[in-house]
Amino acid sequence: MKGFASDNYSGAHPEVLAAMVAANAEHAAAYGADPWTARAQELLRGHFGEQAQSFLVWNGTGANVTILRAMCRPWHAVVCAASAHINVDESGAPEFLTGVKLLDLPTPDGKLTPELVRSAVIRVGDEHAVQAKVISITQSTEMGTLYTAEEIRALADLAHANGMYLHVDGARLANAAAALGLPLRAFTTDVGVDAVSFGGTKNGMVFGEAVVLLAPELAEGFQWIRKQSMQLASKGRFLAAQFVALLEDDLWLRSAQHANAMGARLATAVRDVPGVRLTQEHRANVVFAALDPAVTARLQQDWPFYVWDEATGEVRWMCSWDTTEQEVDAFAAALAGAVAVAA
Amino acid sequence: MKGFASDNYSGAHPEVLAAMVAANAEHAAAYGADPWTARAQELLRGHFGEQAQSFLVWNGTGANVTILRAMCRPWHAVVCAASAHINVDESGAPEFLTGVKLLDLPTPDGKLTPELVRSAVIRVGDEHAVQAKVISITQSTEMGTLYTAEEIRALADLAHANGMYLHVDGARLANAAAALGLPLRAFTTDVGVDAVSFGGTKNGMVFGEAVVLLAPELAEGFQWIRKQSMQLASKGRFLAAQFVALLEDDLWLRSAQHANAMGARLATAVRDVPGVRLTQEHRANVVFAALDPAVTARLQQDWPFYVWDEATGEVRWMCSWDTTEQEVDAFAAALAGAVAVAA
Amino acid sequence: MKGFASDNYSGAHPEVLAAMVAANAEHAAAYGADPWTARAQELLRGHFGEQAQSFLVWNGTGANVTILRAMCRPWHAVVCAASAHINVDESGAPEFLTGVKLLDLPTPDGKLTPELVRSAVIRVGDEHAVQAKVISITQSTEMGTLYTAEEIRALADLAHANGMYLHVDGARLANAAAALGLPLRAFTTDVGVDAVSFGGTKNGMVFGEAVVLLAPELAEGFQWIRKQSMQLASKGRFLAAQFVALLEDDLWLRSAQHANAMGARLATAVRDVPGVRLTQEHRANVVFAALDPAVTARLQQDWPFYVWDEATGEVRWMCSWDTTEQEVDAFAAALAGAVAVAA
Amino acid sequence: MKGFASDNYSGAHPEVLAAMVAANAEHAAAYGADPWTARAQELLRGHFGEQAQSFLVWNGTGANVTILRAMCRPWHAVVCAASAHINVDESGAPEFLTGVKLLDLPTPDGKLTPELVRSAVIRVGDEHAVQAKVISITQSTEMGTLYTAEEIRALADLAHANGMYLHVDGARLANAAAALGLPLRAFTTDVGVDAVSFGGTKNGMVFGEAVVLLAPELAEGFQWIRKQSMQLASKGRFLAAQFVALLEDDLWLRSAQHANAMGARLATAVRDVPGVRLTQEHRANVVFAALDPAVTARLQQDWPFYVWDEATGEVRWMCSWDTTEQEVDAFAAALAGAVAVAA
Repeated sequence: MKGFASDNYSGAHPEVLAAMVAANAEHAAAYGADPWTARAQELLRGHFGEQAQSFLVWNGTGANVTILRAMCRPWHAVVCAASAHINVDESGAPEFLTGVKLLDLPTPDGKLTPELVRSAVIRVGDEHAVQAKVISITQSTEMGTLYTAEEIRALADLAHANGMYLHVDGARLANAAAALGLPLRAFTTDVGVDAVSFGGTKNGMVFGEAVVLLAPELAEGFQWIRKQSMQLASKGRFLAAQFVALLEDDLWLRSAQHANAMGARLATAVRDVPGVRLTQEHRANVVFAALDPAVTARLQQDWPFYVWDEATGEVRWMCSWDTTEQEVDAFAAALAGAVAVAA
Repeated sequence: MKGFASDNYSGAHPEVLAAMVAANAEHAAAYGADPWTARAQELLRGHFGEQAQSFLVWNGTGANVTILRAMCRPWHAVVCAASAHINVDESGAPEFLTGVKLLDLPTPDGKLTPELVRSAVIRVGDEHAVQAKVISITQSTEMGTLYTAEEIRALADLAHANGMYLHVDGARLANAAAALGLPLRAFTTDVGVDAVSFGGTKNGMVFGEAVVLLAPELAEGFQWIRKQSMQLASKGRFLAAQFVALLEDDLWLRSAQHANAMGARLATAVRDVPGVRLTQEHRANVVFAALDPAVTARLQQDWPFYVWDEATGEVRWMCSWDTTEQEVDAFAAALAGAVAVAA
Repeated sequence: MKGFASDNYSGAHPEVLAAMVAANAEHAAAYGADPWTARAQELLRGHFGEQAQSFLVWNGTGANVTILRAMCRPWHAVVCAASAHINVDESGAPEFLTGVKLLDLPTPDGKLTPELVRSAVIRVGDEHAVQAKVISITQSTEMGTLYTAEEIRALADLAHANGMYLHVDGARLANAAAALGLPLRAFTTDVGVDAVSFGGTKNGMVFGEAVVLLAPELAEGFQWIRKQSMQLASKGRFLAAQFVALLEDDLWLRSAQHANAMGARLATAVRDVPGVRLTQEHRANVVFAALDPAVTARLQQDWPFYVWDEATGEVRWMCSWDTTEQEVDAFAAALAGAVAVAA
Repeated sequence: MKGFASDNYSGAHPEVLAAMVAANAEHAAAYGADPWTARAQELLRGHFGEQAQSFLVWNGTGANVTILRAMCRPWHAVVCAASAHINVDESGAPEFLTGVKLLDLPTPDGKLTPELVRSAVIRVGDEHAVQAKVISITQSTEMGTLYTAEEIRALADLAHANGMYLHVDGARLANAAAALGLPLRAFTTDVGVDAVSFGGTKNGMVFGEAVVLLAPELAEGFQWIRKQSMQLASKGRFLAAQFVALLEDDLWLRSAQHANAMGARLATAVRDVPGVRLTQEHRANVVFAALDPAVTARLQQDWPFYVWDEATGEVRWMCSWDTTEQEVDAFAAALAGAVAVAA
């Protein structure tokens, strides 16, 4: 049942699973006091810089929310795109666990701009209004688009000029790095990002994300935030060993490059199919298209994928580390066939 | 570095890991809409009865807290033993995520009695006071002691007579079943328990616990409670496959029986060492003892274990599915040696 | 320093204060178990119907949030206008105390429509998305506009068809009743409203609002919601006595009619001043206008009022129960003068 | 229906009500930006010292909880006596609004000691355990007992040595000052207290308490804490005017001295009645006694008062600013009569 539904429909990369199996020897201190965790933290410092303090957690919502808990008191607010995962796909966990309001801004492409953010940083000092404290962006975005390093620096500067933090939801940060052709730190640490949710699951891990804190004060008390948020794994070695496998010899980058390449191949293959209109500029590992609902229905009989917007008929095709050229080509052919039948 | 620190210092049972590896083929629908999850739920119904509605979660605190969220509104209270994991080892997650107060009662052995519970079910209908809504017990308890099926039934009857629920924190429910010689449902479903946190991690899983809801109304909205509590795994098959391995051919029971046997062997071996006093009747896979701090310090140089109570010098020795007879014997010998040196 | 800043810049109506003084005799049972509270509840039943269960609280945010707590679990969502008081003027109290997300919708006039609401009632049953549970409207709105009884019925029907509740923030419900020329129940109880925050403070009370629950199940546990939300007055008679004074001989209506009349007089007086453009159709006790910032600055030297939107220069002039014709006329003259100077 | 039920069964002192009436002139800026509030804050600085930053709130629970919100993050804990108002009479508001756990310690007299507190400051730095951050004491206590200035200093020193804060729930701080014969600051500011809930309601106000922050960092963000906790009065002048009346010419002290004197008169009058045993040393304005339930029942027919402990039959007799000598004497006589009938 392979398809283009999501990169979390994929399984785990064999090298990741092998690392888990290899870690299964003897006893190890629980809750992250183990050598695998120390090694994963060392590797993360290698990628994000020496100031990076990292905490491994179960899942992406866990990474995002624990970071927001570190950044905010309950009367603060988080500025984000309306399409942000924290806004629409975390069942209200950010509000529930932090108390804060999300100031969500409509965007055409999932990207915040300084101008948009400025429109939400209002009523500063007014006790009746929540106080904007965090700018949260997703990289690559839910729409597959990318922020350049310069764009991120501009948002970081804006944040800091207003006493705010910049958070990056990097569930697909690897895909962004691959697409930008930049080291991870070049568009995070080096341009002023304060904390990153660094994704593992969608890039071939069984489970697991890393909270990477770059502003040092955010680490104060973070261990309690993680534990109290129920994001602390007891047999931590199995979480850490996956990150070690991912980071030690650039498996993370190879997998992301492959997924992106499959996305590009797919975009190219479908771009000229009649009746198919790509709705976002392709950049990372996902393709968005406007499609006749009849075509969608026919195609979904054989290929799992999601309708992104019921109202407009926009669909999302997500590639993964395990997507093959054959699958892309077969899917493009099936699409062309479905369109032809519908015509 | 094997020792007697905790059953979460152990790794995963090889059969469990093998099941994860076997599940790593092709794509699978995310978030639990996969065949492994359906099979795990079926197996749990087999063990707990047809009314059992189960939800897989990351960890034990996650299971406990999501259940309390389903049972309580924020002005409710949870009656528990002072030594309960929810009271002392979850960093306040129950209070933080549910808002409720824990009414924690001192006990000599970690066990609630109807008489104790009655002392906490007071000021019913008084708007100034929190309203007791849940009795939460641990089986086997944090002290290694056990509730009989009859004792649990008495607590369930008391709960229901007062419009309350009975929750069982079963992080070590398997050890209890093995020690009691009873099927799981005989001391849960059949005696009126409303929900169980059924542990997997400490019984040989990499990670994962099952929320088993027995009172049908508790399932209403539970999927949002799980998601919003950040306890929903995206690649759910890897969590479910472990439960399938554990439950399909009684691996859960064999492992627990072994851990209990090692506990019994240890209790026997150390009972007559001079200067060692067992402080709890041994029942499951753990032994508590009062020890001279000098002996403790010497012994901990080679064997990891925890001091349970700094004030009294009480120590805890926990056996696991992977504890061997040789380790028990060597540890008992080392203890005798440390005592002799200190004398 | 009288002016047009807000109806909470006014003091208390003398009849209200006199009632508080009259209530100050002997002892009275605390926390609402007093005859004044019983009488206030009786009067509220008279206005809203026999099913009305009322709870007196300190302030408007308290009324709104306790009602939302009764209606929602934390994974629910509240659909409201972007300009709603709960969205922009309660410092995030709704999110903080209930955990829910507000789905705030831009409107030209502060009014929700069924079409707007439908756009927010999406992803029903999807565990990743918050579930819309409440439609919350303000009557009269923050923009001074009004819902007709029929418009409210349409929203109530829509709510109930989707398993949702309809809440009315009635901080200025009296002004709405006066403007509509309808009894309170005619556009609340009789058209399907489930709960009302019935305002007292802005209509001449020292402090105090009434939670009026019309859907009977909402009252379950409400006394704990009020107490735990810190909205239960200990010397409850002084809160209740004010409502008795307000409701017993239609002081509430006379005061609202007067405030509305002053609003109408003001709208008429300024409508034709050159350079002044009314930005909302006048209906209740408030006038919105677009004004040259230089005029605003000059006028504010003598007359307190608020700039509603810094970006557009829109200002708000609020009339109150104690606004006089002389003040309205003097203010209109001052406005004309300021405009002339600026020209 | 005067009696000895509670000092919140009393009405308001006539001077307080007169001050409210006097404040009812013209318009005043809302939300505390008025001259009465400025004057109340000035008077509070006079009593508590220049560093005192004060915020007026609706009620005692509001004062306590907003202070705890300022002192704590959700993984912290508050050490208090088991009998503390925050622990047993606030319907779980402290846990609900702050997320923290209360570490409640049994005491014979409602008073914490350094030794008791030390027993709760454990597992420092352990991420699995809540971290004790606040010592909260009540002065005078719920049992009518008093802390000396030296006892409070010892607790403050202990708190600060452990990076903790000392909070005083002073719902009856005036009674404590009167009983100790000390200025307010002598047993708060001058001995290291970090924040005080200074009670007004039980000392003759209609409603209202003052949060007095003595550690300067606690004021950061406090205005949002107050607003978001729904404790900000819109017509703030009416709250502040009461405090001005109370504080300007020592009405607070005269009222408290009177209530205490009535308590002493009552203790003396009943001490030697056969079958009556005083269960707490009388110090402030309350008397606790063990009484035959039959006597209690008979006496309550004419005189309202509370049974404090159903299990033991202990009763509480609370005096107030408006208790008269005649009432005390009549009640003592009625008690003697009821005892005689029962004998």
